[in-house]
Amino acid sequence: MIKVNLDHSSLKTVELDNNKVKQIHEIIKTKSGAGNDFLGWIEWPEAFNKNEYDQMKKVANSLRSKIDILVTIGIGGSYLGIRAADEMIRGLNHSDKIKIIYSGHTMSSTYVAQLSEYLKGKKFGICVISKSGTTTEPGIAFRTLEKQLIEQSGIEKAKELIVAITDGSRGALKTLANKKGYLTFTIPNDIGGRFSVLTPVGIFPLLVAGINTDNIFKGAIKAKNNLVQNDLTNQAYKYAAARNALYNQGYKAEALVTYELQMQYINEWWKQLFGESEGKEGKGLFPTSMVFSTDLHSMGQWVQEGPRKVVFETIIKIQNPVGNLSVELDQDNYDGLNFLAGKSFHEINSVAIEGVIDAHVNAGKMPNIILEFEKMDDEQFGYLVYFFELAVAMSGYMMGINPFDQPGVEVYKQNMFKLLGKPGIK
Amino acid sequence: MIKVNLDHSSLKTVELDNNKVKQIHEIIKTKSGAGNDFLGWIEWPEAFNKNEYDQMKKVANSLRSKIDILVTIGIGGSYLGIRAADEMIRGLNHSDKIKIIYSGHTMSSTYVAQLSEYLKGKKFGICVISKSGTTTEPGIAFRTLEKQLIEQSGIEKAKELIVAITDGSRGALKTLANKKGYLTFTIPNDIGGRFSVLTPVGIFPLLVAGINTDNIFKGAIKAKNNLVQNDLTNQAYKYAAARNALYNQGYKAEALVTYELQMQYINEWWKQLFGESEGKEGKGLFPTSMVFSTDLHSMGQWVQEGPRKVVFETIIKIQNPVGNLSVELDQDNYDGLNFLAGKSFHEINSVAIEGVIDAHVNAGKMPNIILEFEKMDDEQFGYLVYFFELAVAMSGYMMGINPFDQPGVEVYKQNMFKLLGKPGIK
Repeated sequence: MIKVNLDHSSLKTVELDNNKVKQIHEIIKTKSGAGNDFLGWIEWPEAFNKNEYDQMKKVANSLRSKIDILVTIGIGGSYLGIRAADEMIRGLNHSDKIKIIYSGHTMSSTYVAQLSEYLKGKKFGICVISKSGTTTEPGIAFRTLEKQLIEQSGIEKAKELIVAITDGSRGALKTLANKKGYLTFTIPNDIGGRFSVLTPVGIFPLLVAGINTDNIFKGAIKAKNNLVQNDLTNQAYKYAAARNALYNQGYKAEALVTYELQMQYINEWWKQLFGESEGKEGKGLFPTSMVFSTDLHSMGQWVQEGPRKVVFETIIKIQNPVGNLSVELDQDNYDGLNFLAGKSFHEINSVAIEGVIDAHVNAGKMPNIILEFEKMDDEQFGYLVYFFELAVAMSGYMMGINPFDQPGVEVYKQNMFKLLGKPGIK
Repeated sequence: MIKVNLDHSSLKTVELDNNKVKQIHEIIKTKSGAGNDFLGWIEWPEAFNKNEYDQMKKVANSLRSKIDILVTIGIGGSYLGIRAADEMIRGLNHSDKIKIIYSGHTMSSTYVAQLSEYLKGKKFGICVISKSGTTTEPGIAFRTLEKQLIEQSGIEKAKELIVAITDGSRGALKTLANKKGYLTFTIPNDIGGRFSVLTPVGIFPLLVAGINTDNIFKGAIKAKNNLVQNDLTNQAYKYAAARNALYNQGYKAEALVTYELQMQYINEWWKQLFGESEGKEGKGLFPTSMVFSTDLHSMGQWVQEGPRKVVFETIIKIQNPVGNLSVELDQDNYDGLNFLAGKSFHEINSVAIEGVIDAHVNAGKMPNIILEFEKMDDEQFGYLVYFFELAVAMSGYMMGINPFDQPGVEVYKQNMFKLLGKPGIK
């Protein structure tokens, strides 16, 4: 569950446009807005292919018994969601036998060479993710690592260790996988990359990581059933309307703030979801991320006393910790922290959050939107994904743009292909 | 070496204020500006205590033979610089026996509990870093992990496995270490936290990580000797003047862009250095980070087509890769990427950078400052640190603030202490 608290946002209820929300709700529901070919994510938590899901579970289980490392090869929406889920649900220092390592999201020769060296002699598998199979970054990473895996495991064994997530019927990666005998799972045609983490793009690697994906779907379905109101009582719409109201007041950037290190890549995933959906036609809030307490001791000074009306903060506040410890009593009390003895870390962190909100909002005159979030687990991950996907649909339409395309991403690709002499490009 | 290229910045030379640069150079040189008690970093690369350095080397070597994991406990400047150096120099998938894990930079109970669980039965040491020893976040993390280490190793052995980096003569951590028999190294009084990575704060953990810190100092000295001009031919000043000129044109935020995953925490370190130095009195660029190619497929859309005159980009462009690989020729060429076969990843990445700069600057009308940077190694890390430290001194004075204090960081702490009932605070 996510509850939106605007008590510290400096917004008056009247500034949120309930009528516009109602109109756009109809547009989403009747699929009559711009980009309506890409609304597959709305029904997906219940509409996905159950046979394919069962098949994915079998393949993932078999893979878990054969490898120690899964290298996923993908970029953008084929990278951030997987990492966001894995780090949020398993945490940063987990003891599961399978480690996920990412590739295909960089062309750094140093990174690729070092990864290749690191994988020598290790038991690894590959999950390559690309709708077309012709994207340069994952394409050249796959060429390198596929060759290495075949050299290390032999060509027959490699067929059991490589899985492709790609288009269901055509494209370069589908053809390659069919010819070479690699299993494939399907990226739906009506769900864009940044909305794809609940499709096989995310679900297959997470199954290999040993994560309970049934619970992820359970959470997404719960969100789908909870977030049905056509007005501001719908919490996803309330968040969308609040950020739009601040945007209309002149704010340029929204900082998503977490107090949990393992949520850092949730913020990165959110940055793509909102930045790529809304940053067009000269519009859109610049999405940025802060991880507190770390960034209280780096960006905190700017937040407290820098220019106003540039950035506002949206805080994800966790209600229940997964693990908890209490501060030890120390007889000597050299550090003077005995006043905290017996208190749990979670209790202290919660108080810190209140103190920071008060400092930033009252002394700093910086609006804070609070998202009250239940817990960092599989089910709540599913809930969070659906919440933000619905919110960005509402928010993008409120801004007057098509939230489901990304025309600007092509410009650098065309430039690059031209400079690299790709056949047929001039 | 770092060379500043303004060809794509949309700035005319006349917009850079050479006279102001000359005036401020005198202020820095004669130590006559605001915050001049904290200019110790200027001479530090040559002025540091050689006896203490030799002692650190001995202790670090001994520690390397006894542990597999070094947990550093620190926040802000006692965290980001260490991680920035470790990841840039050793890379993300290195094979050195010592792993560094960070703590004390979060109060997340989930993180601390999971880390504690992870360390059970493992051979670990602790490097606790705090000038005062009373900062809450590292303080409570140290209480927890110190107890665990003593339980796992016994109280006598633990004395060899715990090192404190703290004030030279007083403070809670100094007292604690003396009483309990832990070795200490000194944080100089005239160097602030965000400028401290070349002091024992950074150098001791990096020695334990097996990094050649002699080379780091060599690079810092090279920068100190190179960056001596009193005008815009000084590359650090040129960068400072360029970002100030864009700030004066109305830009709100500067995105530091890297194409190397292992430079991600250089960007985080830079964010603290610039954000905490300049974000005061209602002034300062909001510092933010982007890691390409990843973020080309997330923030790229916003950068290409979002609002203008909000963000400008500063690109760190690496001249020479550490490792390099070439793209394999594939007989079948299903992915259509054979036009890249035989080209090195570094060559492709360099062309990609040109293509992106052209797309962002010409199609996107977004100014780009290019920092041409030699190589990701120990020596160049030292150079980079000194370059940015000198740049922020110039830049902060140009903005008319004291770049060496951080008054705003105290507000949340006071709030938190009040809410937590700290004795003597009301």
